[in-house]
Amino acid sequence: MAQTGFAVTPEPPYYAVIFSSKRTEGDNGYDAMMEIVGELSVEQPGYLGRESVRDADGFGITVVYYKDEASIVAWKANEKHMVAQKVGKERWYSHYEMRVCKVERAYAGPEGR
Amino acid sequence: MAQTGFAVTPEPPYYAVIFSSKRTEGDNGYDAMMEIVGELSVEQPGYLGRESVRDADGFGITVVYYKDEASIVAWKANEKHMVAQKVGKERWYSHYEMRVCKVERAYAGPEGR
Repeated sequence: MAQTGFAVTPEPPYYAVIFSSKRTEGDNGYDAMMEIVGELSVEQPGYLGRESVRDADGFGITVVYYKDEASIVAWKANEKHMVAQKVGKERWYSHYEMRVCKVERAYAGPEGR
Repeated sequence: MAQTGFAVTPEPPYYAVIFSSKRTEGDNGYDAMMEIVGELSVEQPGYLGRESVRDADGFGITVVYYKDEASIVAWKANEKHMVAQKVGKERWYSHYEMRVCKVERAYAGPEGR
């Protein structure tokens, strides 16, 4: 689930899940699970794209974009994703904040895409 | 404008500006301006907090939270911030995406705050 750039999203409105998190020490199976769940997440109907950064201290922000809120609800209930959510709470994150948002306006720069 | 953690935000609804950006090479006055604008941004009425990460390749995500959309519009029109926006387009960012969102739901974990 390598992420090095910008998500290409349509004209608003669409949805965004902002996931801010602080990792625990060590891998604890994180990379392997992210590879599986990352591939799966892209197949979720309504998935539009993602942007993700984590710094050397383990603080990261991932934003995943969806067509609508129903897609977010469906992805949250995906069985393999539910396993990842459980392990995430137990092992991978010392804290996280998840915010579900409706994107109302969007701009790009310096010169558009 | 050091940022090392989570924004403390109220119960939704509130607003978020997601700013994803790729820096150009070199500082070009960025750090000095960010210090000034960062301090100023906190004083904007309606400002709730921010979360920010940039990786070693210069790709970053900053999310700034506001009470309402009017606060975002007012901050965009702030004179010193307008100077920063102009220089940002000219010098600091090879590309950026800005998305204005209404936060509808929010969760924290593993065990709340």
